[in-house]
Amino acid sequence: MTKLRWGMIGGGEGSQIGPAHRLGAQADGLFSFAAGALDANPEKGRAYAQSLGIAKNRAYGDWQEMLAGEQARDDRIDLVTVATPNNSHFEITKAFLEAGFNVLCEKPMTMTVEEGEEIVRVARASGKICAVNYCYSAYPMVRQMKAMVAAGELGRIRTVVANFSHGHHAAGDDAENPRVRWRYDPAQAGVSGQMADCGIHALHLASFILGDEVRELSADFASTVAGRVLEDDAMVNFRTERGTVGRLWTSTIALGRQHGLDIQVFGETGGFRWASEQPNQVYYHRLGRRVEIMEKGEAGLSDEASRLSRVAIAHPEGFPLAVANIYVDLAAQLNSGAPANFPTAEDGLRSMAAVHASVASAAERGVWVDARPPMFR
Amino acid sequence: MTKLRWGMIGGGEGSQIGPAHRLGAQADGLFSFAAGALDANPEKGRAYAQSLGIAKNRAYGDWQEMLAGEQARDDRIDLVTVATPNNSHFEITKAFLEAGFNVLCEKPMTMTVEEGEEIVRVARASGKICAVNYCYSAYPMVRQMKAMVAAGELGRIRTVVANFSHGHHAAGDDAENPRVRWRYDPAQAGVSGQMADCGIHALHLASFILGDEVRELSADFASTVAGRVLEDDAMVNFRTERGTVGRLWTSTIALGRQHGLDIQVFGETGGFRWASEQPNQVYYHRLGRRVEIMEKGEAGLSDEASRLSRVAIAHPEGFPLAVANIYVDLAAQLNSGAPANFPTAEDGLRSMAAVHASVASAAERGVWVDARPPMFR
Amino acid sequence: MTKLRWGMIGGGEGSQIGPAHRLGAQADGLFSFAAGALDANPEKGRAYAQSLGIAKNRAYGDWQEMLAGEQARDDRIDLVTVATPNNSHFEITKAFLEAGFNVLCEKPMTMTVEEGEEIVRVARASGKICAVNYCYSAYPMVRQMKAMVAAGELGRIRTVVANFSHGHHAAGDDAENPRVRWRYDPAQAGVSGQMADCGIHALHLASFILGDEVRELSADFASTVAGRVLEDDAMVNFRTERGTVGRLWTSTIALGRQHGLDIQVFGETGGFRWASEQPNQVYYHRLGRRVEIMEKGEAGLSDEASRLSRVAIAHPEGFPLAVANIYVDLAAQLNSGAPANFPTAEDGLRSMAAVHASVASAAERGVWVDARPPMFR
Amino acid sequence: MTKLRWGMIGGGEGSQIGPAHRLGAQADGLFSFAAGALDANPEKGRAYAQSLGIAKNRAYGDWQEMLAGEQARDDRIDLVTVATPNNSHFEITKAFLEAGFNVLCEKPMTMTVEEGEEIVRVARASGKICAVNYCYSAYPMVRQMKAMVAAGELGRIRTVVANFSHGHHAAGDDAENPRVRWRYDPAQAGVSGQMADCGIHALHLASFILGDEVRELSADFASTVAGRVLEDDAMVNFRTERGTVGRLWTSTIALGRQHGLDIQVFGETGGFRWASEQPNQVYYHRLGRRVEIMEKGEAGLSDEASRLSRVAIAHPEGFPLAVANIYVDLAAQLNSGAPANFPTAEDGLRSMAAVHASVASAAERGVWVDARPPMFR
Ligand SMILES: NC(=O)c1ccc[n+]([C@@H]2O[C@H](COP(=O)([O-])OP(=O)(O)OC[C@H]3O[C@@H](n4cnc5c(N)ncnc54)[C@H](O)[C@@H]3O)[C@@H](O)[C@H]2O)c1
Ligand SMILES: NC(=O)c1ccc[n+]([C@@H]2O[C@H](COP(=O)([O-])OP(=O)(O)OC[C@H]3O[C@@H](n4cnc5c(N)ncnc54)[C@H](O)[C@@H]3O)[C@@H](O)[C@H]2O)c1
Ligand SMILES: NC(=O)c1ccc[n+]([C@@H]2O[C@H](COP(=O)([O-])OP(=O)(O)OC[C@H]3O[C@@H](n4cnc5c(N)ncnc54)[C@H](O)[C@@H]3O)[C@@H](O)[C@H]2O)c1
Ligand SMILES: NC(=O)c1ccc[n+]([C@@H]2O[C@H](COP(=O)([O-])OP(=O)(O)OC[C@H]3O[C@@H](n4cnc5c(N)ncnc54)[C@H](O)[C@@H]3O)[C@@H](O)[C@H]2O)c1
Repeated sequence: MTKLRWGMIGGGEGSQIGPAHRLGAQADGLFSFAAGALDANPEKGRAYAQSLGIAKNRAYGDWQEMLAGEQARDDRIDLVTVATPNNSHFEITKAFLEAGFNVLCEKPMTMTVEEGEEIVRVARASGKICAVNYCYSAYPMVRQMKAMVAAGELGRIRTVVANFSHGHHAAGDDAENPRVRWRYDPAQAGVSGQMADCGIHALHLASFILGDEVRELSADFASTVAGRVLEDDAMVNFRTERGTVGRLWTSTIALGRQHGLDIQVFGETGGFRWASEQPNQVYYHRLGRRVEIMEKGEAGLSDEASRLSRVAIAHPEGFPLAVANIYVDLAAQLNSGAPANFPTAEDGLRSMAAVHASVASAAERGVWVDARPPMFR
Repeated sequence: MTKLRWGMIGGGEGSQIGPAHRLGAQADGLFSFAAGALDANPEKGRAYAQSLGIAKNRAYGDWQEMLAGEQARDDRIDLVTVATPNNSHFEITKAFLEAGFNVLCEKPMTMTVEEGEEIVRVARASGKICAVNYCYSAYPMVRQMKAMVAAGELGRIRTVVANFSHGHHAAGDDAENPRVRWRYDPAQAGVSGQMADCGIHALHLASFILGDEVRELSADFASTVAGRVLEDDAMVNFRTERGTVGRLWTSTIALGRQHGLDIQVFGETGGFRWASEQPNQVYYHRLGRRVEIMEKGEAGLSDEASRLSRVAIAHPEGFPLAVANIYVDLAAQLNSGAPANFPTAEDGLRSMAAVHASVASAAERGVWVDARPPMFR
Repeated sequence: MTKLRWGMIGGGEGSQIGPAHRLGAQADGLFSFAAGALDANPEKGRAYAQSLGIAKNRAYGDWQEMLAGEQARDDRIDLVTVATPNNSHFEITKAFLEAGFNVLCEKPMTMTVEEGEEIVRVARASGKICAVNYCYSAYPMVRQMKAMVAAGELGRIRTVVANFSHGHHAAGDDAENPRVRWRYDPAQAGVSGQMADCGIHALHLASFILGDEVRELSADFASTVAGRVLEDDAMVNFRTERGTVGRLWTSTIALGRQHGLDIQVFGETGGFRWASEQPNQVYYHRLGRRVEIMEKGEAGLSDEASRLSRVAIAHPEGFPLAVANIYVDLAAQLNSGAPANFPTAEDGLRSMAAVHASVASAAERGVWVDARPPMFR
Repeated sequence: MTKLRWGMIGGGEGSQIGPAHRLGAQADGLFSFAAGALDANPEKGRAYAQSLGIAKNRAYGDWQEMLAGEQARDDRIDLVTVATPNNSHFEITKAFLEAGFNVLCEKPMTMTVEEGEEIVRVARASGKICAVNYCYSAYPMVRQMKAMVAAGELGRIRTVVANFSHGHHAAGDDAENPRVRWRYDPAQAGVSGQMADCGIHALHLASFILGDEVRELSADFASTVAGRVLEDDAMVNFRTERGTVGRLWTSTIALGRQHGLDIQVFGETGGFRWASEQPNQVYYHRLGRRVEIMEKGEAGLSDEASRLSRVAIAHPEGFPLAVANIYVDLAAQLNSGAPANFPTAEDGLRSMAAVHASVASAAERGVWVDARPPMFR
């Protein structure tokens, strides 16, 4: 099988998420890294792309140049990843979709709900893939939980509790740290701080595992560090379309939590707990039985969990390979028309709409608001 | 030192909390079990009391008889524990206080805020001890956290997250189980189900460790099992007098959690996490350092933590000895006038007021309400 | 039921194990603390005993005085606990047995195998109880494991792995610390350091859970801190009477382990793991199933596990109540002739013989030796 | 930078370790997969290689064909991985080294000590790389431990305890299972079962972290399942060149352990514990301090640990990326002459010699034997 051609925008040298995408796309030999506009600085971007083995004429200075260059080629890229800062996702993603490229966009897909709806429309019209990198949804054991919920093994889901809290912005003098400050400044970050950055992952994860969508919510936001305008600690209560009760806490000042993304799902006949720091296990409690430890790679897991695991039971697989699983799913659709197991523009829109709804609710002391994007009401 | 004389009302054969009190009072040789009205059934109560070594004439049939009997004696009991079901706490506690007895009352202290205020008034007028059995506050490592917060080791506290969630009422057919059903029936349980039963412990624990009080709150209640009127899953957001953000989740349908009482405290310069299933450790994260595991019994702990630990480091001490620590503190005051390190009627009132405030808030879709009892506003 | 009368030798003020015995004997209201010779210093012993509520004429200055005093009384003690340093266990235990008292002796029961055999003979001749405080065997979940092995739920046991390793003697300058130094000095500690102090607990625990005895062994001893003569780190391989393979590691220099007593049992159809720092859980793996977490207090446990647990599931019970369970078992025999569920002189002898066998093997570079006391060969 | 050309022998479709090598070599874009003789069945190997994108004329039927084919090319492969079953490692590795290729050989490098010494000689003469895939040594936090030991942060190392025990061969009827049976049959597996398969990893890991070598050892082997000739449970006590005490337990019948590779290192001033199931954390105990949790990706780690980590703190990285780190180190030497941070033929020889020494010792009931290969005595 020949490799698919892959390009990337953003993810330059020293970027946080760039390496995970490069590894994700190449790990399984499914994509070759063919083109890139990797940096806000065109010179640095070109040089870095070439250092990574990209041909000189496909090491572009900016995304417009890349769009033009790739459109002009017969061997144009099969997929482009957009890993720039949040406020450029919309225009880049839109432009590439309209030009007939398949896109994997980083989260949050857009800054506003209106933009999100626009991307959904454009993606539908284009007939191309518009995926969003909610990569936690691609861990084998997350797929396993989804499969079990879908099969009814837990009965109706009563409550879901999702957290994504860390302590990496707890230092008070981070108010002066430029890498942190912009995140709590509406001029740069938009309407939301931590909800849009991390809470959104937890929102998607809950919806993904449940196969259900957030319908309405009530939020309590706090800015616990002096000088911050946007929230660094937020709690959202929600109800899903099917009536599940949701609780979501997200924070950046939670000293003691490193990468505190975890989720608990409670159904009529069973419950489970998964945490991203040990992503290969699920604690599963069937009503009337003991708590059991489910292991990635064990016999009898769902097809989805088995398909996305590469090594034997209890050989840990981590975050970069979860990202790689998004690429595995993209390649499956591109190569053989497999269904979209990856998160799509619709998912990107829904979770962004819920973030905006949280902002609106928090601004009115927790009034319950519709969490759905207007186009899905 | 001669032992103090101790009596008990409720806690009969087969009761849940009775054994913990008997062990708690006697474990350290501080109290002798001298009198009791242990059962709703007078005959069973008298027989059981005698089987436990209580003299025949102090094995009473009911609390009125016990009150009269003990009042008439020179060697009357020094302390009475009220461990009957919730709806009798008020009248029994009030009667014994008024008659000049020291009382340890089980939680919740009363059914209503008005009753709670009455107990506070009566206790103050009596000059006697009115303690409430928030026993988790007496674990050595909980005292350690309180001491560290008080000493400012974590700086100002930004956020506290407390959970008390279990899955022991998850079975749908519990609707028919009499031991469970009454808890969700307003006629028997009052205004609240799980908040009044378990959430109240978490409320007290948060206040206790912080040395701060809940001022206002917003609640989201759910009855996730068909047929239940009162809440079996609740989330409360709150703010304390000093402005700390609070998050409290409590549930009885959380399959996978056995005794899910845990608390996380996040301050400016440090955070920690404690869980009741492994009460001898605290995970402590100082800003800029690694997470450390603090151990009950280690060198350098606070006086309070050291005083209430009986065996060496990493020799676990559990729930019954936390209850015993309440008795240690009571004996310290009774024997030598030590300050009240135990929870008092004021604490019992405050937490009950916060439960009622939660009920009121939840009934109005989460409107923020004053959580304080009127007498403390 | 009237309380049994209990006395204690050793366990004076500031002693390590004294508090656990006092709590153990009194926690359940089964014994009243009636007599004691608590300290090497007669004056201190008398004063301390009285401060604990013992009558003046039963607050003895030494054990000989106590033996004489108690023999002369009609209401003599029903049980005496010997909690003095190791080298006095033999003579005190022997004297009290011969005088017709029931004895609970601390471990190690004696310093030599010969003395151990003598105690067994004396105990048998006396018809009195001679118990040994292998208290870990009285944890509910340890009893649960024993019951499951006995019932054949794990099939034939292939391998048992027991560790009792801590790091509390890791400081190199402990060579000068009197509280540590004597432990590695043959003149004071006898033939063995850590094996006789902690390894012996692990030896007993393995035999107890398996219902099987160590038959032969091979040992590797090391003194890893300069200046120590006796071992501070030891490994023993053994075989039981029924052919189970045993592995036992014990150390005092294992920095990072606090109270590292744990045991793993592997049978044909299942395996489990228990650790003393979280004594309320057992990780249980049935062949072909997932690992399950067994919880103290869960429904369906063995009678032994249920009988020795005082509070509900996931309410932790710790070390002092394991000691209390030894007293529960002693009271059961004393009050109503229940069988000896507690460890006896035979167990004390067997484990001490295995320690001596380890010393002999280690001295000859690991040659396999018979681990049984001569009288049981 | 142009990619290095990489080839593989063994690791065909359905093989256990093949996928980890392909991911390892390609994940970071350092190697292109250029040639392969992937299967014992030439037709299947050729087809599978082409399905993975290898050109038809480099999809070889067997290793001899591949050796000839690659030798004849100008763009011959820069590195070949040997991932066939154990008994062919020697001849393939030797042939490729002699022909001037760089080799990464799976463990165990050879079946006998003599073969191992031959490989060392051939590798030295060739001037080419002969690496061995002790991939656990390439986890960032394993490198961190090694760096800390080398820097003396733990002082002299007193004791090391390494385990590699699992329960995946616990089923008694595995005696009939061909995928398991051969492992305990000397005709197919050679002199050792579990020691040569898994114990050898633990041996290497201990030596690697300590920067020290096993000098002498004493072993106790058991075949706990009826019908097995070779050991399925082994304990090895050892001493290193610098006098560290070693304890190594390995088993295949340890139900409850999934991938039970863990290591504890105890020095004069600190100790730590690492387990392969959560490879991103080290529990570190400095003398006189609390236990701390070190996290992959935290600030201040050693260069080696930082260099081999791809994503931020607490984003887990697992087994396949540990294998990838071996390739990172190989590429660093191939591309720019970096020193050999990967395990070499010398390491492969030493650990194999220690396995053979264990066999010899166990055969003589644990007599202590020299563990070093003759050429290193
Ligand atoms: N899915 C996840 O788990 C996850 C994790 C981290 C970040 N992210 C998302 O990835 C995106 C990037 O985040 P990051 O942390 O890597 O940011 P970063 O600031 O570390 O890196 C951004 C990179 O994009 C480049 N860039 C900026 N503007 C560009 C432009 N116009 N054209 C080309 N390149 C440009 C920068 O030079 C830099 O190399 C964000 O949207 C973020 O939310 C997602
Ligand atoms: N602090 C804690 O952690 C904790 C834990 C469990 C229960 N509790 C509290 O303890 C109280 C008792 O709970 P429980 O679970 O043991 O209840 P239970 O139903 O198991 O036992 C109640 C006991 O009180 C006796 N009783 C009832 N009415 C009586 C009366 N009028 N006079 C004398 N005895 C009477 C009953 O016969 C029975 O023996 C409740 O208020 C509960 O909230 C507290
Ligand atoms: N079962 C367990 O888990 C456990 C734990 C700790 C200690 N122990 C055992 O308990 C025994 C005591 O250990 P410890 O750590 O408490 O010792 P310790 O040194 O702390 O206390 C010993 C006490 O015995 C007193 N004493 C000494 N000689 C005496 C004598 N002749 N008559 C009366 N009193 C005397 C001392 O004054 C002191 O109060 C030892 O045999 C030890 O092995 C058992
Ligand atoms: N480093 C590790 O952690 C690790 C883990 C697993 C296996 N291994 C080692 O990897 C090696 C392979 O183990 P496995 O479990 O993958 O075995 P396997 O039986 O699963 O696969 C072996 C593969 O090699 C192929 N093969 C056999 N003989 C061949 C030949 N002469 N030429 C070409 N291909 C041939 C087979 O067709 C098969 O595809 C072993 O030496 C094993 O010890 C190492």
